[in-house]
Amino acid sequence: MTTHRAFPCGALGIARAYADGAFSARELIEATLARIDAYDAQINAFTAITRERALAEAAALDARRARGDALPALAGVPFAAKNLFDIEGIATLAGSRVLADAPPATRDATLVKRLTAQGAILTGALNMDEFAYGFTTDNHHAGPCRNPHDLTRSAGGSSGGSAAAVAAGFVPVTLGTDTNGSVRVPASLCGVFGVKPTFGRLSRYGTYPFVASLDHMGAFARNVEDLAAIYDALQFADPRDPACAQRAFESVNATHGALRVARLGGYFDEHANDDARDASRTAAAALGASDTLEYPAADAARGAAFLITAAEAGQLHTESLRSHYDDREPLSRDRLIAGALLPASWIVQAQRVRGALRRRVLELFEHYDVLIAPATPLVAPHVGDAFMEINGERLALRPNLGLLTQPVSCLGLPVVAAPMRTKSGLPIAVQLIAPPWREDLAFEAARRLEAEHVAYCPPPPSFDEAHLASREEA
Amino acid sequence: MTTHRAFPCGALGIARAYADGAFSARELIEATLARIDAYDAQINAFTAITRERALAEAAALDARRARGDALPALAGVPFAAKNLFDIEGIATLAGSRVLADAPPATRDATLVKRLTAQGAILTGALNMDEFAYGFTTDNHHAGPCRNPHDLTRSAGGSSGGSAAAVAAGFVPVTLGTDTNGSVRVPASLCGVFGVKPTFGRLSRYGTYPFVASLDHMGAFARNVEDLAAIYDALQFADPRDPACAQRAFESVNATHGALRVARLGGYFDEHANDDARDASRTAAAALGASDTLEYPAADAARGAAFLITAAEAGQLHTESLRSHYDDREPLSRDRLIAGALLPASWIVQAQRVRGALRRRVLELFEHYDVLIAPATPLVAPHVGDAFMEINGERLALRPNLGLLTQPVSCLGLPVVAAPMRTKSGLPIAVQLIAPPWREDLAFEAARRLEAEHVAYCPPPPSFDEAHLASREEA
Repeated sequence: MTTHRAFPCGALGIARAYADGAFSARELIEATLARIDAYDAQINAFTAITRERALAEAAALDARRARGDALPALAGVPFAAKNLFDIEGIATLAGSRVLADAPPATRDATLVKRLTAQGAILTGALNMDEFAYGFTTDNHHAGPCRNPHDLTRSAGGSSGGSAAAVAAGFVPVTLGTDTNGSVRVPASLCGVFGVKPTFGRLSRYGTYPFVASLDHMGAFARNVEDLAAIYDALQFADPRDPACAQRAFESVNATHGALRVARLGGYFDEHANDDARDASRTAAAALGASDTLEYPAADAARGAAFLITAAEAGQLHTESLRSHYDDREPLSRDRLIAGALLPASWIVQAQRVRGALRRRVLELFEHYDVLIAPATPLVAPHVGDAFMEINGERLALRPNLGLLTQPVSCLGLPVVAAPMRTKSGLPIAVQLIAPPWREDLAFEAARRLEAEHVAYCPPPPSFDEAHLASREEA
Repeated sequence: MTTHRAFPCGALGIARAYADGAFSARELIEATLARIDAYDAQINAFTAITRERALAEAAALDARRARGDALPALAGVPFAAKNLFDIEGIATLAGSRVLADAPPATRDATLVKRLTAQGAILTGALNMDEFAYGFTTDNHHAGPCRNPHDLTRSAGGSSGGSAAAVAAGFVPVTLGTDTNGSVRVPASLCGVFGVKPTFGRLSRYGTYPFVASLDHMGAFARNVEDLAAIYDALQFADPRDPACAQRAFESVNATHGALRVARLGGYFDEHANDDARDASRTAAAALGASDTLEYPAADAARGAAFLITAAEAGQLHTESLRSHYDDREPLSRDRLIAGALLPASWIVQAQRVRGALRRRVLELFEHYDVLIAPATPLVAPHVGDAFMEINGERLALRPNLGLLTQPVSCLGLPVVAAPMRTKSGLPIAVQLIAPPWREDLAFEAARRLEAEHVAYCPPPPSFDEAHLASREEA
């Protein structure tokens, strides 16, 4: 492979250099596609490449620039989206063979449209757990997505392709979704920044649903500045998504003075190994957090999320499980059937628990702006691992990788996942948890961790054979 | 029985005359209690009389007046509350023998406190269907509540005692609750005004729950002015009821110009007999409504309410059904057990339907301020009736008396039930349905029906033997 011309590796770096005329969008997109073509066979982040569209959009953008038109904020920035986002002209797979013959989407999802309107260029669709039900992107149809840090390890899931595509340096930003941890878990294992905003903040219109009362849209980036830029491009109320349309009605309190930060102990320490606890403590120290709090009934919140997920997803997929059982992902189909058979009284109680806990957790935010917890109990496990050991307890890996994320998303709280370094060299993220609608506080905490060089900083992608080969050996 | 001194029969009439010194609160309360003592054996509206409290409050009020203190808005107005409202010092029965040995409530429910703070005087607790699950107040523990218009007929339910106490002239205003129609159905059958405000408007703190996601507090009165006065005294946000605390966040649109009124046809005509349809048409004509609309998927909304009710109530009562099956009301215990056994997937779907229909119905309010529908399919049936015939279809009476109210409350919309005359002389109410938080529009429509003498006007209670005797013969 020939040496590539050096392009900035961050989204805003690209946008600024492109606006300055440092390169054409066509050059950048051709190089981006060439890298994906060359190396993604090893990562398996992409399930489709939107080559023609990307080149057409690049040409149109170059023409606008040549005319001297004002350029939008993300002009020239390549991105890609988890394959549950509708992309005009291709079938929305949602990770499943069941949908392989579905008609092509007739329009882009709202968030894809939004990024496109800001000048970002879609390069493709990304690998995920089938119907987002899983934390490993161990997809039996598309094959597992591998971790760019170590190709024998998992990228996490369900937005594994989205995290891996950023970590591998294929594109600087991607779209993912998070129902129980599907942004935060792969961000943690792949060492990139991720945001799962407040429930209802980002429109889900044009995405394949999983659990309507828990699904959040989110994004990944290599640094906080890029993540904030893409988040700002994405966030706007959309009357076509009812949950999103309601956000203007929740109150927003102004912050005053310094960030008041606390670390979550108890449940979040007990279900974390040394790497995860160290990351949480390091972040807490860097943010001046001396208090350690108990998150009220974290186990009950997690149980509620687990049951609501199983029941809502089971209900959604009942018909398809009847008609396409053999086509379904073996790792989740039995869980969906179990979910479809849950008694209503359990789900009523789970919803009650969820409401009650939300009110109790909101009280914590009367005293703190940001709460810190690890995003995963451990660093990336190996592809195919079925179990993990945490503090002497052996747990099934796939349903439990989200142990630490579920109690938080269950209550709809916004989180930025910030990757941290561990002794092993593999990254692990902390969750920076803010009150509803106060994503700004979580971003501010992430910015401080980055500024103080406490957060993990992904190395610039070199994209030469040696680079990926060395990863392959790891 | 000796002739009683004449007191005004309306709440505001009493408050004004009391403030003017026309009588003492002690005289009024003694007369009120004497009437209840003399005649309630025939009606069975009251399950407890708070005699000492009422006399003590009357004495305190008289002392305030004697001192020349400013009097609150409802000073001297006797009222009573459905026996699921906590009343300090007595056990909250919620219509059930299961709770007969419960410890006395240690404080009043928020709404009882609120009326007491406004100078109203609590005279007792009122009969209801067990745990509010029923539309007839056919209570096997306390005995059925009878309709003051005809003692052989039902008062409706579940707030039957509340409607009957007002219709009989025992007290001018009462508190009730409405989950699926429990204010509107007895208001219709007893010929009094009732209000079921927007979901979340009135605090439920200190009341025995039935279906948390559907329970509304409400009130009854003899005329619109009284109903508005008691509603205004009741409505305030209460941070101790989460649903109520959120109300300030929903938007309120200003009205412009004349009331835009439409009549609901389709489902609401098909499930109504001639009396009910005539009432709806008469109200529509009086309010200048020429359009007849279809309420979107009213049958699906009703089905969703039915399932959510069964599941939430079944879950709430699972333990007590196990431990006290024989003590439970035979008319509802089997339905509760069936509810506890529903599959979660049904309830998930019911909740989804509910959310989707709410959005569709809200669109109707872009063109109309008030929608009209009958409150019950027919006038008061006889006590003990198990079936009714509506347009040639034979339906079980108890679960279907709420056919026309359930699709509306399921979506949390505010309603004033306004009683109308029928050819038979028995009353039947129309529902005046407004958009969320716009109770004022429903009140305005009721006020117009009353002003134009279209609404049924309950005769002033005479409280002599002849009066009730004549009712008894009917």
